[in-house]
Amino acid sequence: MTEFTPFRRLALIGIGLIGSSIARIAAREGLAETIVCAARREETRTKALQLGIVSEAHLDPAEAVKGADCVILCTPLGAYAEVMQRVAPHLQAGAILSDVGSVKACVVRDVGPLVPEDVHFIPGHPVAGTEHSGPEAGFAELFKGRWCILTPIPGGEQAPLDRLIRFWTKAGSKVEVMEARHHDLVLAITSHLPHLIAYNIVGTADDLATVTKGEVIHYSAGGFRDFTRIAASDPTMWRDIFLNNREAVLEMLGRFSEDLALLQRAIRWGDGETLFNLFTRTRAIRRAIIDEGQDIAAPDFGRQATPKNGKANEPGKK
Amino acid sequence: MTEFTPFRRLALIGIGLIGSSIARIAAREGLAETIVCAARREETRTKALQLGIVSEAHLDPAEAVKGADCVILCTPLGAYAEVMQRVAPHLQAGAILSDVGSVKACVVRDVGPLVPEDVHFIPGHPVAGTEHSGPEAGFAELFKGRWCILTPIPGGEQAPLDRLIRFWTKAGSKVEVMEARHHDLVLAITSHLPHLIAYNIVGTADDLATVTKGEVIHYSAGGFRDFTRIAASDPTMWRDIFLNNREAVLEMLGRFSEDLALLQRAIRWGDGETLFNLFTRTRAIRRAIIDEGQDIAAPDFGRQATPKNGKANEPGKK
Repeated sequence: MTEFTPFRRLALIGIGLIGSSIARIAAREGLAETIVCAARREETRTKALQLGIVSEAHLDPAEAVKGADCVILCTPLGAYAEVMQRVAPHLQAGAILSDVGSVKACVVRDVGPLVPEDVHFIPGHPVAGTEHSGPEAGFAELFKGRWCILTPIPGGEQAPLDRLIRFWTKAGSKVEVMEARHHDLVLAITSHLPHLIAYNIVGTADDLATVTKGEVIHYSAGGFRDFTRIAASDPTMWRDIFLNNREAVLEMLGRFSEDLALLQRAIRWGDGETLFNLFTRTRAIRRAIIDEGQDIAAPDFGRQATPKNGKANEPGKK
Repeated sequence: MTEFTPFRRLALIGIGLIGSSIARIAAREGLAETIVCAARREETRTKALQLGIVSEAHLDPAEAVKGADCVILCTPLGAYAEVMQRVAPHLQAGAILSDVGSVKACVVRDVGPLVPEDVHFIPGHPVAGTEHSGPEAGFAELFKGRWCILTPIPGGEQAPLDRLIRFWTKAGSKVEVMEARHHDLVLAITSHLPHLIAYNIVGTADDLATVTKGEVIHYSAGGFRDFTRIAASDPTMWRDIFLNNREAVLEMLGRFSEDLALLQRAIRWGDGETLFNLFTRTRAIRRAIIDEGQDIAAPDFGRQATPKNGKANEPGKK
């Protein structure tokens, strides 16, 4: 791959977990000469400047994009339309316009028509994150070893796409190019449905009258607490994801519910074989994810101080 | 609380993750003079002896319980009946008989009648574990800060119960005494349903034809990978849990599915308010779990090298 030429001015519209992580890695790796942002809340702008991760923080996104050769939308999906209305007339000819939204077909459909002809529009999605939000939650290593999916518009130029691929590669990502609709289907199962289910079970537990909230909290180490992490993700961002990836999420949810009905029946009728067979099959996927470096092998996500082997806790070796 | 008098001989029937963790902490804290085990597989017995966590490892559980003043069943629930048939005639008068199974009403119902009159039967459940299995997966700190629930039989003596409470307290646990049926309801929502859902979504993803297995693995960092940890838990143990806590699991599953139908409808009809309200409410439970020390506050379970605040990754501070 040829050398990456840094952007002159990188404008991040929105400076939360993802935007601020891009700002950090771009600064560290010299991916842009100047990094600026726009944010709606004054508190966020002040924080971004205090952290020293941007040199300008604007209320008006139009001010941020002026003279920028790369603009990345890092707001929740629901804010895109308003942002585009403000920035479209001010985008520089030849600039790359991208985003980090978790749904892509809606971005192609809704944002695409608003992009000036001389701007290269390349939607993107770094598959990375934590349950924390805001500029202080970001960190430079967020994208390291994680995949970034780009969904270029058919007929778009190759050179700007190559440049954006190099940008994300420099940021530590592995990059994949795919069609927007396929992206939405893949993410519906690997990200959106898991979040929906996690939010749902936490809600179900919260509503119970027969089991107290204290009991749910005490005994959450039995498995429940894992779901609460995901269910602590940003509510606005996730509302927008579900509203904008409706078809794919409903499709995956339908399959999930069908499969769950089968398990329900197996439990009701005492069919241990069906349960055992599924429970055995699912172990292989965990292994493959660890082998690919997408999760750590340490038991319990390494939360507990578990030894590498049994020896470490032998009696007398305290 | 009065001083704990160590058991003379502690017999662990089954020496997997939980049994071997009990052996380790009992040795470290001097909770028993002699610690022995029984295990069906020769490989397991050899491993337990090699690890130095037990001084005897028997094929026949009857040999292990002879002379033991405390016996703890640490096998999957499905093996209890056979074990009890073997050990009942050999249990020492005055001994405490307990277990670590994740369902309790079935233990009271099935094991209770097989226990000799002069033996103190006190079912128990330490709510702790990892997705790994076997004697080498155990560690002494497993129970530290976690809850252990005891579900004594009504009319049982107080002194043996107090002794077992002290045993688990010495092992690092917080102890709660509750009725077996209530335990099963609480664990159905905090542990059994989360596992069922995790197994199910991993199965659903595995079955897809439109999304490849490679794609599921690549993009698992979007949330899916969290579920694969739980879905890598021991298949035999979990089959037995679902077969033995049928009613409570079906009850919780019914509520979960009802709630999920509501979310499905909200997505279908674009009702962002319902989604946003739930997604906001669920954050509070996460906070409460962290406040109680049942999970760590670090983002992403601390899997990533995230800084405590934004400063650590500021440009130029590499």
